[in-house]
Amino acid sequence: MKRYEALAEALAESMAAGQLRPGDRLPSVREASRDRGVSPSTVFEAYYLLEARGLIEARPRSGYFVRHAAAPQPEPSASSPESRERQVEVSELVFQVLGLARNRALTPLGSAFPSPALFPLPKLALALGRATRHLDPWRTIEDLSPGSPELRRQLALRYLTSGCRVDADEVVITNGAMEALNLCLEVVTQPGDLVAIESPTFYGALQALERRGLKAVEVATNPRTGLDVDALASVLEKHPVKACWLMPNFQNPLGSLMPDEAKARLVALLESHRVPLIEDDVYGELYFSRRPRPAKAWDRSGLVLHCSSFSKSLAPGFRLGWAAAGKFAQEVGRRKLMSTLATPVPIQEGLSEYLQRGGYDRHLRQLRQTLAQHQQQVLRGIARHFPAGTRVTQPEGGYFVWVELPSQIDALELHRLALSHDISIAPGHLFSADHRFSHHLRVNFGHPDHPKVEASLKTLGQIAKALSP
Amino acid sequence: MKRYEALAEALAESMAAGQLRPGDRLPSVREASRDRGVSPSTVFEAYYLLEARGLIEARPRSGYFVRHAAAPQPEPSASSPESRERQVEVSELVFQVLGLARNRALTPLGSAFPSPALFPLPKLALALGRATRHLDPWRTIEDLSPGSPELRRQLALRYLTSGCRVDADEVVITNGAMEALNLCLEVVTQPGDLVAIESPTFYGALQALERRGLKAVEVATNPRTGLDVDALASVLEKHPVKACWLMPNFQNPLGSLMPDEAKARLVALLESHRVPLIEDDVYGELYFSRRPRPAKAWDRSGLVLHCSSFSKSLAPGFRLGWAAAGKFAQEVGRRKLMSTLATPVPIQEGLSEYLQRGGYDRHLRQLRQTLAQHQQQVLRGIARHFPAGTRVTQPEGGYFVWVELPSQIDALELHRLALSHDISIAPGHLFSADHRFSHHLRVNFGHPDHPKVEASLKTLGQIAKALSP
Repeated sequence: MKRYEALAEALAESMAAGQLRPGDRLPSVREASRDRGVSPSTVFEAYYLLEARGLIEARPRSGYFVRHAAAPQPEPSASSPESRERQVEVSELVFQVLGLARNRALTPLGSAFPSPALFPLPKLALALGRATRHLDPWRTIEDLSPGSPELRRQLALRYLTSGCRVDADEVVITNGAMEALNLCLEVVTQPGDLVAIESPTFYGALQALERRGLKAVEVATNPRTGLDVDALASVLEKHPVKACWLMPNFQNPLGSLMPDEAKARLVALLESHRVPLIEDDVYGELYFSRRPRPAKAWDRSGLVLHCSSFSKSLAPGFRLGWAAAGKFAQEVGRRKLMSTLATPVPIQEGLSEYLQRGGYDRHLRQLRQTLAQHQQQVLRGIARHFPAGTRVTQPEGGYFVWVELPSQIDALELHRLALSHDISIAPGHLFSADHRFSHHLRVNFGHPDHPKVEASLKTLGQIAKALSP
Repeated sequence: MKRYEALAEALAESMAAGQLRPGDRLPSVREASRDRGVSPSTVFEAYYLLEARGLIEARPRSGYFVRHAAAPQPEPSASSPESRERQVEVSELVFQVLGLARNRALTPLGSAFPSPALFPLPKLALALGRATRHLDPWRTIEDLSPGSPELRRQLALRYLTSGCRVDADEVVITNGAMEALNLCLEVVTQPGDLVAIESPTFYGALQALERRGLKAVEVATNPRTGLDVDALASVLEKHPVKACWLMPNFQNPLGSLMPDEAKARLVALLESHRVPLIEDDVYGELYFSRRPRPAKAWDRSGLVLHCSSFSKSLAPGFRLGWAAAGKFAQEVGRRKLMSTLATPVPIQEGLSEYLQRGGYDRHLRQLRQTLAQHQQQVLRGIARHFPAGTRVTQPEGGYFVWVELPSQIDALELHRLALSHDISIAPGHLFSADHRFSHHLRVNFGHPDHPKVEASLKTLGQIAKALSP
């Protein structure tokens, strides 16, 4: 942990313990610097971080104050899916709903993507230009799967900083995390097999299962701490699970984050059952306080296939992802060769160039602050406008919150009415093989630059209230 | 047909008819221009084209002369596979052989790729830079599958020039033709289904069938005219074929080209059986005389899924391909969304920019000439050095010839010995589900800039002779 992070942590603990209370003024930068024996810039960074997390606020010419927490909102209830195997058939609904949501005229509360304006596209374009202008033509052959050695080395280095040892040799470059996840699924399952997933789960996982003709068993989750490892243990006892597809960090749609000890138990449990874990970690870099370790960090037997990408954190539309596939790495590389042969060489070389030049971490700090601040705004909007009885998650990262509306409200109906007001939402039906989250929705808070977020939350709240009996 | 092409064609016919014979001097440019009533530059272009096709040669200060044909070499025999359904298991061998062939220290006679030096990479880098520097960030969302509307429009325009009406709406942008082919296969088959393929066939098709758990039935071919449509008709009578995967233009590995009337019969035959055709047309632009039409040009019912890419003709390593998937287009687009979501936006926009600026056709003319000339050299090398009884195809496009050695020679043994001399070859075993082409090899003539092609052909010939009894 960096010094400013440690200071921010200490202050956050004082707030949690009630030593610093809402409305209290924080020490000035000069005072804190002297008292804590750290540099003023460390204090500044700590205060920025706390501000980004919504814990303190700056008042002009007065300094920093502990904030009154957003109207405290209850969390959605833990999920309790039936423990049964079922065929997956969601694609038709997913395509219908998401096809509509790609229209940029809509307020993108249902979007899967953060605002493309949050990313350093001009810098990436420069890196792409530099990397390709004098490209050794033979790289177009040598960067075929598993991918550019230099890029894979860069990725292995980044794993180290997230507390995870990954050898460059086990990294396969893919077309975004989606391809990585699909290839991993293909390697560890046969059609007809059973896969354990979270309830609710990312619809992309459901589509991948459907595409490969797999069955799903859904496992209970807690909206804050994610997968219930005990529930998974009981599922593993009862069902012939061949693989797990999970998202321990900032789960889509919950935003939940599994604590370290739960990740450790998860990996040990799966190891004892010899069940591979496909770990979708595309939001891991978008933390608001500390980089969470992936479950892969506890992997000792190569059973964890860790998948991620730059699509949410750096370079949307570049479709640069990877799998650190443990003992399945060679087979994943072969499947990649057989399906799409390679990830475009200019993209690989361009991102490798960008990473080598530095600037990624600076960009990420900015991005995380922006997202954390906007999360607070969206949570306040929901608290203000949504019907009584609404529950919502308050994730420590990512750009989704999960909203549980009063149970009489049908989210598909809400979706249809919202569309007529040029607002997209992602109804809960998309996130389960049995469509059980019928009064839930996922709200995207990754569009801080969009002028109509607040107004759209208000409209959405009005529609929801009108749908309540 | 352009004016210079018509003139070249007329002269080629005179040679075929014996009016112009080997050693004859062609009229000077001035004479021909006057006699034929065309501009001198038209005559120049026609002569260049004939030179590229190996039909005439320039002698310094003397003009152009009809060439003595390369030592006339017999063609390989037509294939006659057993008409039976079989499981496909080739991948292990393919990976072994091709994994070794990616080393740039080898003379790449076994390579699947033409020399990367033949392509306008610096110009493509410029186009990539221009397209991405001021990219509208929202394109990163809107260019998701089926892909950039402008690029799809450009592709539809190019189809028109190859005599084929394709609506931009049926085009899905993919990561190279390999992904297009795989997605199309996924849409028109279920695991366990039977697919008809050529004998010999591209190993990528065999791998795709194996990956999806499909069975293959191989259909006889002629080394010059490709698929035997009568043989296919008989296969369709006897077997429950669910799809065909064929390469009518410059088939890999034969280099064969189906005549127009055979394509027309093929499409009509498949239509009468309601069997979809996956048409792999990645070499179609690499013709030496006239652009062959794809089978898709005869498609009236949307059953032809035409797949191609820029990987062999313009931009290796960019992984930009597409499927014009007829009535399956929407389903192919959905599978693309579910598997890799999208093709990188900078790549789509960069190639769209390059196509709009023009220059592609000029590049292609140059590329075709280079390949045609080098084909002559390689054919002469084979004629000179390979054992008596060797047969070889003389394709009118692409960059492969198919060599049939005396039947006692084991091509896998030849492959192993060649490697020890730093020469890669592609043994015939790779090109059939039943490994029947054991004394055949595919030779790549797409590396005119490689200094050791001639010497390597000589070495290869010596090894082959030593392997003959």
